[in-house]
Amino acid sequence: MALGSGRIEQLAGRMKAQGISAFLASSPITMGYLHGFFEEGGERLLLLAVHADGRVRMTCPGLTETQARRCGLQEVRSWRDGEDPFALVRELASDWGLEPGRLAVDDDLAAARLLELQRLLPRASFEAGQALLASLMRVKGDAELELLREAGRIADGAFQDVLGRIHAGQREDEVTGMILETMRRLGGVPAFCIAATGANSAEPHHHSDGTRLREGDALILDFGCSVSGYLSDITRTVAVGRASAELRQVYGIVLEAHRAGRAAIGEGVPCQAIDRAARRVITEAGYGPQFMHRTGHGIGMRGHEEPYLIEGNAQPLEPGHCFSVEPGIYLPGRFGVRIENCVVCTADGHASLNEEPPDQVLEVG
Amino acid sequence: MALGSGRIEQLAGRMKAQGISAFLASSPITMGYLHGFFEEGGERLLLLAVHADGRVRMTCPGLTETQARRCGLQEVRSWRDGEDPFALVRELASDWGLEPGRLAVDDDLAAARLLELQRLLPRASFEAGQALLASLMRVKGDAELELLREAGRIADGAFQDVLGRIHAGQREDEVTGMILETMRRLGGVPAFCIAATGANSAEPHHHSDGTRLREGDALILDFGCSVSGYLSDITRTVAVGRASAELRQVYGIVLEAHRAGRAAIGEGVPCQAIDRAARRVITEAGYGPQFMHRTGHGIGMRGHEEPYLIEGNAQPLEPGHCFSVEPGIYLPGRFGVRIENCVVCTADGHASLNEEPPDQVLEVG
Repeated sequence: MALGSGRIEQLAGRMKAQGISAFLASSPITMGYLHGFFEEGGERLLLLAVHADGRVRMTCPGLTETQARRCGLQEVRSWRDGEDPFALVRELASDWGLEPGRLAVDDDLAAARLLELQRLLPRASFEAGQALLASLMRVKGDAELELLREAGRIADGAFQDVLGRIHAGQREDEVTGMILETMRRLGGVPAFCIAATGANSAEPHHHSDGTRLREGDALILDFGCSVSGYLSDITRTVAVGRASAELRQVYGIVLEAHRAGRAAIGEGVPCQAIDRAARRVITEAGYGPQFMHRTGHGIGMRGHEEPYLIEGNAQPLEPGHCFSVEPGIYLPGRFGVRIENCVVCTADGHASLNEEPPDQVLEVG
Repeated sequence: MALGSGRIEQLAGRMKAQGISAFLASSPITMGYLHGFFEEGGERLLLLAVHADGRVRMTCPGLTETQARRCGLQEVRSWRDGEDPFALVRELASDWGLEPGRLAVDDDLAAARLLELQRLLPRASFEAGQALLASLMRVKGDAELELLREAGRIADGAFQDVLGRIHAGQREDEVTGMILETMRRLGGVPAFCIAATGANSAEPHHHSDGTRLREGDALILDFGCSVSGYLSDITRTVAVGRASAELRQVYGIVLEAHRAGRAAIGEGVPCQAIDRAARRVITEAGYGPQFMHRTGHGIGMRGHEEPYLIEGNAQPLEPGHCFSVEPGIYLPGRFGVRIENCVVCTADGHASLNEEPPDQVLEVG
C-alpha cells in the first residue's frame, strides 16, 4: 500500500470539486491503484465504492472477502453464490443517498452491469470515470517510475537475448514464445508479443501465426511485460538475413521520425505536437498515408492509457507522464517498419525507459 | 470459417423472433464465433453490427481493415486515428434505421462505449445480448467438442508431467510457471494457473505468489489452456509429502461430491440439480458452510459462460452443454480441497473432457 497511500483522498477531492457523488470501481487496475486490491470479480459482482467524502465500501463475492480484508478494507459487504448481489447495491445507494446524483464508473465496466445499475438506480446519472482517474494515474511517482524502468529493462534484455536465436525458417509464433519465455526468465510477467514477418509486418496489429521467417524479410517485434503491475512496450524492426536497400531506407526514415517525436517532448508541450513532429518526417519523405496510426499512447498499469499522442489532443505534457513514441511505415503486401521506445516526460525534456533503438536495421539469423 | 458458418443467420433469426433490430458486437469472442474475426479494438472503436435481416457491417480502425476483409467481411467502414469513429455509428444507425429500436450489445462492451452509444442514439433502447448469443454458443458442435477435448487432454498431460517435479521448498509461482510452460510445450495456449498451498488453498481465488510449499501442505492446482480459442479448466488437489488423515478424509468427501454431481447430469436435468447433488454430500458430511461457491460453470471460448450450475438455475441441460463440476471444501487458515473436471452433457448422461481425478489424494515431492 505504500504506492497507493493518499490516492482515495485525492480522488475524493476531485469528485467533490466536480459534483460527482460516488465512484463505483470494478476494474482490478482501478482498485489496485486506489487500494492495493487487484481482484477481479469476473461474472460475479465486485465493486469498490468511493464516496466524495472519502468513505469506501467494498461489495464482493464471499470468495474474495478474505483478500479484501487483508488489503485493509474495513467496510466489506459480501454475498454468496445464489444470493442477489444487487440487493447490496440497493443498500449502498440507500445508505449513501446516491439518488439522485452523478455516479462515475470505470470505463471498462461491463455494459451488462451498467445496464443493471441504470435499471436499479433510475434517478442516478452515470458517467465514464476514466478521465477523472486518469488525472491522478497519468502522473507517475518515483516508485511507479522505478517499476516502469524495470519492466523496460526486462524488455530490452529480452530483445538482446533473442537476437542471436532468430533465423529464417522459424515460425512467427516460435519467436513470440521465445520472447515471452525470456521476459519471464528475466523476472517480468509476459504481457504480449507480436512477431510479424514479411507482408505481415505491414499490418500494425498482426496476430503472430505459423508464418515462417524468410531470408530478406522485415521482422517487427513488439512486446512487453509487467513488473508489479506496471508495463513495458517496445518495438524493434530487424531484417532476417540481409536487409534490402529499401528496408534500410525506410528504417532510416522511421528512426528519424522516432527521434523527431522524442525531441519535441517537454513540459507544457501539447500531446499532438509529438505526433506532428514525428509525422512531418514521414510525410516529407513521401510516406504520409503509410503511417496511419497515432504516434503513441500513455503507459502504466494499462498498456494503453492517457496521454495519447494524437492530432487533436492539445493536453499539455507534464513531468511524470509516461508514453510510447512509435511511428511506423506500412507498405501493404510488402513490409512494414515500426520503432518504439517508452519515455517519461521530465522537467528538462524526457528520459527513455528503454535502450536506444539501433542506428541501422539489424540483420539477424 | 467452417466452425462458424450459418451462425450469423441463426443469430439473426433469433433477433427477429425477439424484436431486436441489431446486435452490436465488440468482443473478439463474439466476433470470432460469429464470423471468424478475433480482433480486439482496445480503446479504438471496433463493432461488428448484425441486422435482424442478416446484414453485417464492420466498423473498425484502419489498422484492422485488412484483417477484416481477409475474414470475408464485405461491408467494412474504417476510420483513421484522429477521425471521429462515432460518425460511422451515426451513419450505420441512419442507413439501418436503428432508431427507435431495441439494440443488443455484448455484455462485456465497455461502459464508456455504451454511455457514448446511448448519448448518440437516445431513441434506441440498449440491452445485454449475451443471453441471446448464449442460446447459440452453449450448445457445442462436434468440431468445437474436439477442440475442448484437445484442450482438456493438454491440461491432463501437464498435470501428469509436473507431478514428479513438485517438491517442498518451491514457490507457488514457480509451480504455476512450470505448469503454464508445460501446457505451451504440449501445444496449448496457456490461459491461467493457480497454485495455492497450505492456508492459501483455503482461498478459492488465491493469487499464486512467493509462498513456499511445505512438507504436509495441501496444494490446489487449478489451470487450463486454449486450443484454437477453446478452453480447458481442471483442478487437482495433492499433498506435498505425506497427507494428513484430515486431508485424506476431506479429499474423499470432495471426490464423492464431485462424482455425485457428475452422476446427476443428464438431458433435461435442471442445472441446479447438479449443484444440489454435489452439495448434499458435503452438507451431510458437516462441511456445508465450507463449500461457499457454486458447483460449476459452462466453458467454451470463455472460461466462464452458460450454463451455470447453481441453486436457482432451473435451465435444463442439453446434449452439447459443456461445463465444469468443481465442488470444494475450504477451512480458513488451514487448507482447502477442490476437484474439477469439465464434462459434456450427452444424450445418455455425460462424457468427461478430462481424465478421472485420482481416487485418493496424491502425495508428491
